[in-house]
Amino acid sequence: MPLRLTPRDTTFFDLLTELAQHLVTGSNLLAEMLGADRPERKELAKQLSEAEHDADESTHSIMRRLNQTFVTPFDRDDIYELTSALDDCMDYMEEAADLIVLYRIGELPARVSDQVQVLQRAAELTAEAMPRLRSNLTDLAEYWVEVNRLENQADKAHRKLLAELFDNVSDPIELMKLKEVVEILEAAADGFEKVANTVETIALKES
Amino acid sequence: MPLRLTPRDTTFFDLLTELAQHLVTGSNLLAEMLGADRPERKELAKQLSEAEHDADESTHSIMRRLNQTFVTPFDRDDIYELTSALDDCMDYMEEAADLIVLYRIGELPARVSDQVQVLQRAAELTAEAMPRLRSNLTDLAEYWVEVNRLENQADKAHRKLLAELFDNVSDPIELMKLKEVVEILEAAADGFEKVANTVETIALKES
Amino acid sequence: MPLRLTPRDTTFFDLLTELAQHLVTGSNLLAEMLGADRPERKELAKQLSEAEHDADESTHSIMRRLNQTFVTPFDRDDIYELTSALDDCMDYMEEAADLIVLYRIGELPARVSDQVQVLQRAAELTAEAMPRLRSNLTDLAEYWVEVNRLENQADKAHRKLLAELFDNVSDPIELMKLKEVVEILEAAADGFEKVANTVETIALKES
Repeated sequence: MPLRLTPRDTTFFDLLTELAQHLVTGSNLLAEMLGADRPERKELAKQLSEAEHDADESTHSIMRRLNQTFVTPFDRDDIYELTSALDDCMDYMEEAADLIVLYRIGELPARVSDQVQVLQRAAELTAEAMPRLRSNLTDLAEYWVEVNRLENQADKAHRKLLAELFDNVSDPIELMKLKEVVEILEAAADGFEKVANTVETIALKES
Repeated sequence: MPLRLTPRDTTFFDLLTELAQHLVTGSNLLAEMLGADRPERKELAKQLSEAEHDADESTHSIMRRLNQTFVTPFDRDDIYELTSALDDCMDYMEEAADLIVLYRIGELPARVSDQVQVLQRAAELTAEAMPRLRSNLTDLAEYWVEVNRLENQADKAHRKLLAELFDNVSDPIELMKLKEVVEILEAAADGFEKVANTVETIALKES
Repeated sequence: MPLRLTPRDTTFFDLLTELAQHLVTGSNLLAEMLGADRPERKELAKQLSEAEHDADESTHSIMRRLNQTFVTPFDRDDIYELTSALDDCMDYMEEAADLIVLYRIGELPARVSDQVQVLQRAAELTAEAMPRLRSNLTDLAEYWVEVNRLENQADKAHRKLLAELFDNVSDPIELMKLKEVVEILEAAADGFEKVANTVETIALKES
């Protein structure tokens, strides 16, 4: 084992990167679901549920290490926040996928694809950012600015989409189903913003 | 006053146990409500509202003590988290009971009883766990594993129940009422999981 | 620059006061919207959105300063909590205003005015309380007791309003729209309570 010049535990970065990569997998499966037919959707939702289990494992590994490590690379509470926020993103994506299947939702409005594209982009940016927490944190400004921009865009699109649903879906029960899925996707986008804000907090404290 | 060998304040454990016992009372009243007729439900909801006031008192006592005590038995923030999470469980149960009365809900689907049984079991386990925070924390592993298992089960049951409501309740207004009650009960189950996770965090830090 | 007898940074108080004043502006615009016709509502919602941007600026200033200041007037996490809670209040008010316009909601039930009056009163009390964080904190007890009282009152009114909506609005889609607005207003009232509770926590720690 090579000499460690710093007591900081690098495996936190590996675990956070691993967790964020499960979110990339999850968001891609969700995107695939939208265009799929019902039996395919069921299969994809199952895969997303497995990705969510993997993310849970990563989350538990981080939490356990966090509670048992004396010297953490950043403020303990910030790592906790970051991990919880990443885990929440995954839970929302899995919940959305599950409800699309359980509610036997048919074709989804085009703007839902826009929502999911934001999640895919945010997940990619997050997975790229995690290993870079190890080195120069100020370089990450581009990442958190971009995720905040994406979330603002998603928020505006989400409200337009809600108004559209109320205008175009005349069956109230169908409307309730779609509204719930759309709101869970919005919560996932909020989750990615929370991740980015926590990274910003960490960077500002370290600077 | 006997000699204290430790500066740790044992009354935190007493107050947390007291608070958790109000949750047992609350969950039992909620279970009773399900099978009751309308006038009985109103009376039981009133009793649950009183239990919620009692829980509020316990919560405020803990918070006041927490902010005024220099040496706390565990990390101050963890006691805060634990207390808030217990208080949230009670608030959700009281809200569910109140809405069942206010919305004049008739018979509730059988799966709602399953939800409430999970709450009763989680409340019992929690009330048993609180006094044991005082001594060997690792013995509590069984408790938090069991509450997590219960919550996972409740989560799956909750989604099936939602799908069932959408399939079987044709009146959208009735559906909205039931969906709201069911979701508040799910939030209560999540609350018990949060309590258990905080206990796990405390135990891992102390081990 | 005059001699500072204390290293405490007074600008936190100025910034928190500024942020709270944006909430006063926001709540007043919201109140004006209720009685306005559709084109006026659109204009007022735009002004509220600008107030929300201003609040965002104040929030970011506080967060940046918080992360870069070594000595903060109170516990760093409590200032963070307080700022986030103030920002959340504003976000909810802006969201409610936006949805009233987007959903083209007609006349709102009288109890909604009661909800918004609570927000106006809570915002005023909060804006008066912020500069007083600088000096004698125990004097603030009246403030947090009053906001808690207001929120309890708002909570009861909110549930009655929900029951009323279910009784009186026969179009489920109209009901869904109104219910969403009403629940966001209730979340705003909860937000003001959270602000008051954080002030109480700060005061108890300092006493």
